[in-house]
Amino acid sequence: MSDQTGHMTSGEFKEHGYAMIDWIANYMEQVEKYPVLSQVSPGDIYNKLPEHPPQQAEDMSAVMKDVDEIVLPGITHWQSPNFFAYFPANVSGPSILGELLSAGLGVQGMLWSTSPACTEVETRMLDWMVDLLDLPKTFLSSTDGGGVIQDSASSAAICAMIAARERVTAGDVNKIGLSGQAQPLAAYCSADAHSSIEKGARIIGVGSQFLRLIPTDEDHRMRPEALEAAIEADVAAGRKPFFVAVTLGTTSCGAVDPLPAIAAIARRHQIWIHVDGAMYGITALLPECRWINEGLELVDSYSVNAHKWMLTNFDCNCFWIRNKEELISSLSILPEFLVNKATESGAVIDYRDWQIPLGRRFRALKLWMVIRHYGVEGLRTFAREHVQQAQKFAAYVEADDHFELMAPHPLTLVTFRHLGGDAINERLLDILNESGKLYLSHCKLSGKYVLRMAIGSSKTTEDHVDQAWASICQAAAQAEIELS
Amino acid sequence: MSDQTGHMTSGEFKEHGYAMIDWIANYMEQVEKYPVLSQVSPGDIYNKLPEHPPQQAEDMSAVMKDVDEIVLPGITHWQSPNFFAYFPANVSGPSILGELLSAGLGVQGMLWSTSPACTEVETRMLDWMVDLLDLPKTFLSSTDGGGVIQDSASSAAICAMIAARERVTAGDVNKIGLSGQAQPLAAYCSADAHSSIEKGARIIGVGSQFLRLIPTDEDHRMRPEALEAAIEADVAAGRKPFFVAVTLGTTSCGAVDPLPAIAAIARRHQIWIHVDGAMYGITALLPECRWINEGLELVDSYSVNAHKWMLTNFDCNCFWIRNKEELISSLSILPEFLVNKATESGAVIDYRDWQIPLGRRFRALKLWMVIRHYGVEGLRTFAREHVQQAQKFAAYVEADDHFELMAPHPLTLVTFRHLGGDAINERLLDILNESGKLYLSHCKLSGKYVLRMAIGSSKTTEDHVDQAWASICQAAAQAEIELS
Repeated sequence: MSDQTGHMTSGEFKEHGYAMIDWIANYMEQVEKYPVLSQVSPGDIYNKLPEHPPQQAEDMSAVMKDVDEIVLPGITHWQSPNFFAYFPANVSGPSILGELLSAGLGVQGMLWSTSPACTEVETRMLDWMVDLLDLPKTFLSSTDGGGVIQDSASSAAICAMIAARERVTAGDVNKIGLSGQAQPLAAYCSADAHSSIEKGARIIGVGSQFLRLIPTDEDHRMRPEALEAAIEADVAAGRKPFFVAVTLGTTSCGAVDPLPAIAAIARRHQIWIHVDGAMYGITALLPECRWINEGLELVDSYSVNAHKWMLTNFDCNCFWIRNKEELISSLSILPEFLVNKATESGAVIDYRDWQIPLGRRFRALKLWMVIRHYGVEGLRTFAREHVQQAQKFAAYVEADDHFELMAPHPLTLVTFRHLGGDAINERLLDILNESGKLYLSHCKLSGKYVLRMAIGSSKTTEDHVDQAWASICQAAAQAEIELS
Repeated sequence: MSDQTGHMTSGEFKEHGYAMIDWIANYMEQVEKYPVLSQVSPGDIYNKLPEHPPQQAEDMSAVMKDVDEIVLPGITHWQSPNFFAYFPANVSGPSILGELLSAGLGVQGMLWSTSPACTEVETRMLDWMVDLLDLPKTFLSSTDGGGVIQDSASSAAICAMIAARERVTAGDVNKIGLSGQAQPLAAYCSADAHSSIEKGARIIGVGSQFLRLIPTDEDHRMRPEALEAAIEADVAAGRKPFFVAVTLGTTSCGAVDPLPAIAAIARRHQIWIHVDGAMYGITALLPECRWINEGLELVDSYSVNAHKWMLTNFDCNCFWIRNKEELISSLSILPEFLVNKATESGAVIDYRDWQIPLGRRFRALKLWMVIRHYGVEGLRTFAREHVQQAQKFAAYVEADDHFELMAPHPLTLVTFRHLGGDAINERLLDILNESGKLYLSHCKLSGKYVLRMAIGSSKTTEDHVDQAWASICQAAAQAEIELS
């Protein structure tokens, strides 16, 4: 259904738009009823879609029927209150509406001039986030620093690595490449850092071999003395240390690397310090948890994911840099077709120079709508509840003779394990995830198979956590019988 | 307004959602009335937003008031039918609704298992696009090849460059880095290729110096014999040629590099061939324009932007690869937390291994909705009209003694220039863009300042093109007087 050009008329857009809003409202109300982990088999969805695109226009009602019948069974429900896997990617009403508005405006904010609001709302939101999280003032846009929205913490880390690479080689790698360097570059992160750091080291041409995976202590935190030893060994061997990634909340168990000690070492050796606070950086919403920020005043770059635990749709990584010129000079190329008066004036930010791709969506709208809808107090309440829920869950584990806690759990991730060994834990995870009642994921800690209970879905309440624990106990009993 | 948890209730979401749909419907109807290029000054928007985030929740109606009063004046209207700058980023009703649905589902499709539909709808859509554009069957998912959605042609090109880098070094750079290579790597593109190719060469550590900008012919197309000479010079000097980027539709003037001749040379030297069809790849919707595909059966990777000229919101770049294993092996890292049975079965695609970041949105939904809403015939009608409009515009230029055409214009981009010299063309552009009536951009061709008329906005009709020409003539008269 459409006008003679084939486009949807305004009336049709409203009709289908209201229907889509209703569909989403209904989905959000019903989401708890679906199996959290999709139970389809490989190829099920693909094979239900026609082999060829339709020659003629179809009605949106036919598409929505297929959304219900084909797509929905293939959804793993990240927005279920019983989603406890990985880290959350929680969303909210105002964020969804922000995404909708961004899609409706359809602007591409590569340059300030290609939509000044796309740049300036973003700059203001990154300043607001400095305020919300009580970050160092050196990240504010009014200083030499500043912030930008990236699609992910992976991309933020790569941008930081590139800026660090250019700093240590005085811009030489961008010009003549790494093959022209007399000394190999060396980077550092903990053995428990996110895989994106190794992927970044590969992408930028440094190579996995020159990323040192620093051993961790009994709580899975990077050992500063091991870092310093690795740096000194590299220097002695004629390599150039250039980058260290510090993690606030590792994926496996939520470990928080000792930033102040690491930063002191890195600064002594003039190494770029990037902090990956993808998950736990948001904790700083809570004044009582601002220990998470300790040492941030010493770092070169920092990223947190509003799209993990701050009700803002993926993608919305917030990335700050202490000296924006180091980032811009590393990533800027100015072809003639992008030359414009605003850029030449030097009075504006062109965010294309702060990221890998050229094009960019108006992602700040969703963050703006989330912050205004909830307010600082609302965001705090929300985060605080999740921390309390995780503490309650940890208490259940601790009180039960069949289970043990596997790592400190000051915030929202609890790692635990049935005492019966790896096989029983693996079976336990399968029983739970196949039940559709909840979805957990796993990791390995000190070689042991460990279950991860990651709290943070927008709709998770204490009841859901209680039910999850009951399901876990029940599944454990079943696994014990099966494997006995 | 929200429930006791601070979340929007279902009823509130519907109320604000309908209002947002109405706002967008109204915006799309009114978009022609706004100045195409935003007329605000640097800081105008930023300074109107409060310095600090609100402590308490605000009502969405207050936010929407600010959208009207603060954001809207800062929008450069990419969806205006009078937007003729850069290349288009056109959108449509079904695409906006697809984005909305994606936001509402809020899934993160890094792995097949984290939402099978997110992966399998995407795989089917990339197969549909092979059909729609009559691409080589070697790009279908049922072969050794396959496709994936990237955020942009920049990212697609970088992924291709990384796969090429690892092919030529047998995976060595990922392991030991470029500094461990005995020979520097060399890449090639035309002097008119997109800046993302040079940015990519920098990012992956090759360096600008080892990207050869091959001279072009009188129509701004890469000269195959110059490419071959450059390759041979590199080989003779002990460098390893590894990557050539071929452009179908350069940004400056829409030049189409002679792919068959380039591919023959590159294949002889075993160099990875990547084709950047960001803008003009979509032309192959039209059976009468499939000359654009000539030589694609010889290439290693190819990308086109559904988000430029196929009514699908940015970001939606379609990227195909002839041998998906080369891409996956170059970009895959499997930490324990991502290990799962579906991945281990080998029966599924995990698109995280096809891109730079880990996380990914459900972008295939918007492409699915666009293709179904318009059908093949509808998409063709739409593209065909734009080509006809551009031809009409070129005829106006050709018939006017004050102007000259600057390059071949077989499709939708017309480059032209007032005969009065650079200064008058620069002034002409300023008069036009400051008028708000239309928005053009510029480039340089053979050292001359040239205006670009890029047609492709969803709502552009022949009338808009006629009016644009009238405005250009009027502004030219004014510029002639001012500068005489």
